[in-house]
Formats: sequence, C-alpha cells, structure tokens
Amino acid sequence: MMVNDYVVVPEGSVTTPSGFRAGGLHCGLKKTQRHDLGVIVCEVPAQAAGVYTLNQFQAAPLKVTQESIAAGGKLQVMLVNSGNANACTGQQGEDDARAMRSAAAKAFGVADHLVGVTSTGVIGELLPMPKVLSGIEKLPAETRADGGDDFCQAILTTDLVKKEICVRLTVGGRTVHIAGAAKGSGMIHPNMATMLGFMTTDANIDSAMLQKLLNEVTDSTFNMITVDGDTSTNDMVVVMASGLAGNDSLTPEHPDWAAFAGAFTHVGEYLAKAIARDGEGATKLIEVTVAGAASRDAARAIAKTVIGSSLVKSACFGADANWGRIIAAVGRAGQPVQTETVDIRLGDISVLKQSRPVKFDEDRAEEYLKGELVQIHVDLNMGDATATAWGCDLTYDYVRINAAYRT
Amino acid sequence: MMVNDYVVVPEGSVTTPSGFRAGGLHCGLKKTQRHDLGVIVCEVPAQAAGVYTLNQFQAAPLKVTQESIAAGGKLQVMLVNSGNANACTGQQGEDDARAMRSAAAKAFGVADHLVGVTSTGVIGELLPMPKVLSGIEKLPAETRADGGDDFCQAILTTDLVKKEICVRLTVGGRTVHIAGAAKGSGMIHPNMATMLGFMTTDANIDSAMLQKLLNEVTDSTFNMITVDGDTSTNDMVVVMASGLAGNDSLTPEHPDWAAFAGAFTHVGEYLAKAIARDGEGATKLIEVTVAGAASRDAARAIAKTVIGSSLVKSACFGADANWGRIIAAVGRAGQPVQTETVDIRLGDISVLKQSRPVKFDEDRAEEYLKGELVQIHVDLNMGDATATAWGCDLTYDYVRINAAYRT
Repeated sequence: MMVNDYVVVPEGSVTTPSGFRAGGLHCGLKKTQRHDLGVIVCEVPAQAAGVYTLNQFQAAPLKVTQESIAAGGKLQVMLVNSGNANACTGQQGEDDARAMRSAAAKAFGVADHLVGVTSTGVIGELLPMPKVLSGIEKLPAETRADGGDDFCQAILTTDLVKKEICVRLTVGGRTVHIAGAAKGSGMIHPNMATMLGFMTTDANIDSAMLQKLLNEVTDSTFNMITVDGDTSTNDMVVVMASGLAGNDSLTPEHPDWAAFAGAFTHVGEYLAKAIARDGEGATKLIEVTVAGAASRDAARAIAKTVIGSSLVKSACFGADANWGRIIAAVGRAGQPVQTETVDIRLGDISVLKQSRPVKFDEDRAEEYLKGELVQIHVDLNMGDATATAWGCDLTYDYVRINAAYRT
Repeated sequence: MMVNDYVVVPEGSVTTPSGFRAGGLHCGLKKTQRHDLGVIVCEVPAQAAGVYTLNQFQAAPLKVTQESIAAGGKLQVMLVNSGNANACTGQQGEDDARAMRSAAAKAFGVADHLVGVTSTGVIGELLPMPKVLSGIEKLPAETRADGGDDFCQAILTTDLVKKEICVRLTVGGRTVHIAGAAKGSGMIHPNMATMLGFMTTDANIDSAMLQKLLNEVTDSTFNMITVDGDTSTNDMVVVMASGLAGNDSLTPEHPDWAAFAGAFTHVGEYLAKAIARDGEGATKLIEVTVAGAASRDAARAIAKTVIGSSLVKSACFGADANWGRIIAAVGRAGQPVQTETVDIRLGDISVLKQSRPVKFDEDRAEEYLKGELVQIHVDLNMGDATATAWGCDLTYDYVRINAAYRT
C-alpha cells in the first residue's frame, strides 16, 4: 500500500529493519503458558531514544533504561517482561531491574549500559527473580530473525491482538525500514508516553535526532489515545536505529527528512490507534477530531476530553447518537469555546450546526455507530488549530476485565 | 440521631422548614407515568442563593434562575422539570425557560423575578411547551405541606432512590430547620455545583450570607463527588431561606453561626454522598480521603483523581484489593507527592506503608470490599492538608444504562 513516500511492508515486524532479531518465551510470570519474556537484539549498538511515563510513581525498570540510554545514547538489547510491572516495589524492585539488565547483558555478550529493561503487569508485587533470570539465560537460543511474532506475544497482557507494523521508504537512495510493536489495553492515558512501544529502524540517525523526532511523534500519536484515563506507572516507548541501511545521517536538513518523519509518524499513529482499538473490552475504535480551535493545545485538550468521556464511550457502544454528551464534554474541557458556533458530525452525519440541533436520520446514525470505526468531528469555528485523539467504547467487557484483573 | 448541635428529623423533607410547600405531577415529559414537573413554594419571598455548573454550555433555565436571584436575592417559587434538559436549545430554549417562569409566576401569584427554573434530562431537544405549560397550570392544586415526596419523585431521572434530608437545630433560642433534596445519577462530576440540589431553611439569613455559606459548603460536598467525570450542562444547587424561624439574622458573628454552618454542611454532605451512592449502576459508595498533603488543593485534586479512576472503580466493583491502581492514580494527579512516603489503607486494612507493599489478608480485604461502603485512605505523609471525595463503583449496569439512555 502506497502512503505518501513510504509503503507498508506486508507481514513486516520489528525484525524487518536490517540488523534486528527478536524472541520470546514463557518463564512463568503469566499463569498460562503464554510468552512473558521478550527481547529485541541489534547486531550492532543501536542509536536509541525513549519517552517515559509522567506518572510520579515511575516503575523501576524505566529508571534503569533511562540510565542505559543516558550512558551513551545506545541500546543493543531491549528486554521486556509481562505479568508483573515491577512498580512500587522500592529498592528491591530497582535491584531486580538491574539484575535483569546484567543477566541480559551477560546472556547476549554486551555491556550493561547497552541493555534496556521494561515490565508490564500487576503493580506492587516483587518479581520472582529465579524464574526471570532462568528465562533470560534461555533467551539467546530463542532469538531469531523471524522472532517478531514471539516478541509481540511476550508483551501482551489483556491485549487481544498483537500490534505491529513496518514501513519502507527511500532515504538518500538507500532503502530504510521503520518498524514498531506495542502493547496497550488498560491503564492507557498517555502523558508523554504511555503503554509500551518498541520501534526499530535501520536508518542511520543519531540518538539526539531520534529523541527529538520521537518526542514530536509521541505528542501527536501515543499521547493522543486513551482507554480509561489512567496513566500507567510503566509507560514507555523506545526506538532503536541500527544505521545498517547506510544512508547519510538523518537530520532535519537532509532532503529526505520529511519523508522519514512522515513514515515514522505513520508507525507511531498506527500503533497508537491499534492500542486504542484493542482497549480493554473495546468493540470499536473512536476517533475524535477537533477543528477550528483557538490553539493546538485547546484542540488537543478538547479532543482528549471527548474521547475520555465515559458517557460518550458508552453511547458509542450502544450506537446511540447522543451528541449532547459530546457537547457537554467540549464544554467542560476548560478550553475557550464560542457557545454559539459549534458544529458536530458523526462520520458524515451532521447532528449539530452552529450549536443548534440538526434533524438527522436516527436509523442511519445508529447504523453508522454500529460500525468498527466511529469518527466524531467537532468544529469550534473560532480558529485554525486541529487535533485528533483516539479511544474506544466502554463495554460490559471492560467492567468484567477490570473487576477481577488480579484474580 | 444527635450529630454535633443538630438532629436529623425523621421523615423530614424540603417542606419541613416553616413556610414551605411542595408538589409534583406528570405532565408528559417522561414516557412512563412518573412525575416530571415539580415545585417548591415558600409562603413569603425567601432569601435565595445558587451555584451553577461551570460547563460552558450552560443550559437555558440556569440563566433565567440566575437573573431571578440577581434581581433581588429572593425566590418564592422554584420550578423543575425532568425528562428534558433544555440545554443546547438556543434562543428557543431560553424563550421556553422564560415562558416557564412566567407561567409559574402567574399560577402562584408572584412576580416573575421570584421564580427560579431548572431542567434535567436529555440535552438538545426542545421542550414540548404545551405539555409543560398545561402542567404548570395544574401545579398549585398539587402543592402541599406534605408534598416533599412528590417533589423528589419529579426530579429523578435514572436515579433509583430519592435523596432528601432535614436537620433541626437551635439558633438564638429559636428552632431552625435546614432541608435538602437532590437528583444525581449520571453526568456527575461537579465543578462549582453539579447535579440538581434544592435546599430549604426557615432560618433568618440574608441572601449574601446564604450565598457565601453555599459556596463554601458546595466546595467540600457537592464539588467532591464524581460518578463518571462528566460535568453536566444543567447542574445547580439552590437554597431558599424563609426566615420564619424568627431568629436574629445569621452572620459569621452570630454565636450560633458555627452550629448553623455545621448543620448546613451536614445536609450538603448527606445529599452529595447520596448522589454518589446512587450513581448510575452503582452497587456501593466509595469514599477517598487524602491526608498529609502539601495543600488542600493538592489533597482535593488527588482525592478526585482516585475516585474518578475507572480502574479503581472497577476493582471496587469486583472486590479486588488492587491498590496498584490507587497509587497509579495518586501519581498521575499532577500534584506534589513524595514517592517513598505514601501509606494506603482500605478501611482499616493497611496495604501500602511508606510506598512499600504490606502483606495483608486477601480474604479479609475481599470481604471488606464487598460491603456497601468502601473507604480508601491515602496518607502522603508530607503535610497537614486533607480532603475527602465520594464516588461509586463502575459496573455492568453503568454500561447498560448509558449504552441506551435515549432509547
């Protein structure tokens, strides 16, 4: 599929970019025999960048990963476990995260500071370290050029589907790939970065540039989704660039920078939307676009307020064209609005024009809302700024899943 | 029951204070034969005060009520309909709210500016005015000294139980009553005031003092509850004081001011908690107290973040002692915390001490969480400020109710 200057690689994964292998196995953190330990390995130290949760109770492994990247801007091994978040576990948790890093460094024969670590799962329980360390020892044998799928399985918790993508484009005459995998599902309300995202690329780009690009892209993709308004302690997106595509180093001055940034954004947005669509209990993806706002911050805040409204989410689940809930959310977002100039559309069905109800075909609206994608358009008609946010419906299954997550 | 200086009057209602009558009837706004039009009437013009939603799309009747109170600080007739919010209905909605005011003024023989109007129900539909006006004409015949119950029935929407209370105390040797009735259930996340609350008292107190007291009490009661994080367009609390108790006018210098303010707060808090407990689909009341905070604003913000967390609410529904969700909410509230000094208790069961997990009896915790009241205590151990917020669990019934509210 051609999208702008890049194409999506069919069956592409985090190992499609040159230099990357991946793998996963079951070490005993999940009660069922599903993978719970995964790794991405680069054959050379990769330029690296990361964004991390703003939740003040940041989990131990995030501190360790930040230290690794800070040491030299590079990562060669990215280790992840699911089933246990290693958050709110105090000094022991930090010691455990460091022990995981050392064990992975030893297993893959690299320096400690080239290893990143992250965890996802239940908060507040210590990791069963013998199981984890024994799993790490076995990981190199399970790490393969076609291990992207195993890695994806290893990062899932309540996710129903794996989320991965790879795009290809040309940079300075060289073929470059950008790939990503993510987990999401619950406690998803990114602030800076949230959930776990792993991106790989074979582009030649240094760590500082990669960080700048990741920050920008996170702001309009991962930070614009919500499942339940709860920002996790463990959210992180990490990107590793092997440089093996051999292009001239990418900076904003490079003639193909815009193409690369566009492709990079596509990967981020694809993963963000995939997380929203697979939110806990979700039956559909909801996309809220706010246009005509006084500022981008206002547009973002309003879009996130609408997408986060339990009432809007429930109405989408029930296919009820209850636009009153949408405008109520717009009005409580704490942003400037003109109360007489708001338009609202559900898909292409106009329901509010200049803040006045429009007679619409209820049956057609219901039919539209029953679909797997609901697009809510809000035009404030007061400025030029626009923002889009993604989320999902609120369903019986969300309640079922979260009423007994630990048991 | 004796509480401080006041007693709760058994079977007390908004008509218990001297001078008040009330009533309700079915005029055709609700599809079933339940009351949908109600009124509180005072035999003299009552000193009045009100607080109103901060949602920018404030409903038409709220504007009209504010105008009435602004005209002379008094109300004699407070009219309310349920089944239709008369919100986002433009000029026609405002004209309709004024027509309701005029009709009620005529029916009860008072000046227009002594009438307040409010509405609750679906947003964005015009009121069927012939039904409403015909109902208003019939209201005086349905207005009685024992009409408190009829009034309560008339303000309910998805509420399951009526919410009313009356307390009695002595002020300057005179017996004074303070009573209230409220509706809540959905779109409940007060900001300034939210949901509908009606308070009556026979105390002698002027409008300005009443307003000051109402503002303070709203801040720690109605503004500290949430059902779903959605601030309605129609929220309002109005208080009417007949003065017929004959006490010396109440000001902060009056020797019984503290007693009166305490009793007034009790009424506000009782109604606020009753709304939270009867939140849409709720099976229990959740009370979150944050202590040891750096400031009252910080304590309030953290308490409201925890009470508003869908994950915390779901865990309470499922009786799952998942305190990780509580601390995650504390950490994303945007307020100062010390990440190493947080204590959390569920009732009297300590689950986190100095930010470290405490081994607790899971069976006992589950038993506690299955109760009708769940008290979550968070101590930040960094200051003196405290705040309490109230909410309810997130259940299958919340989804069921809101997936098809209009249909």
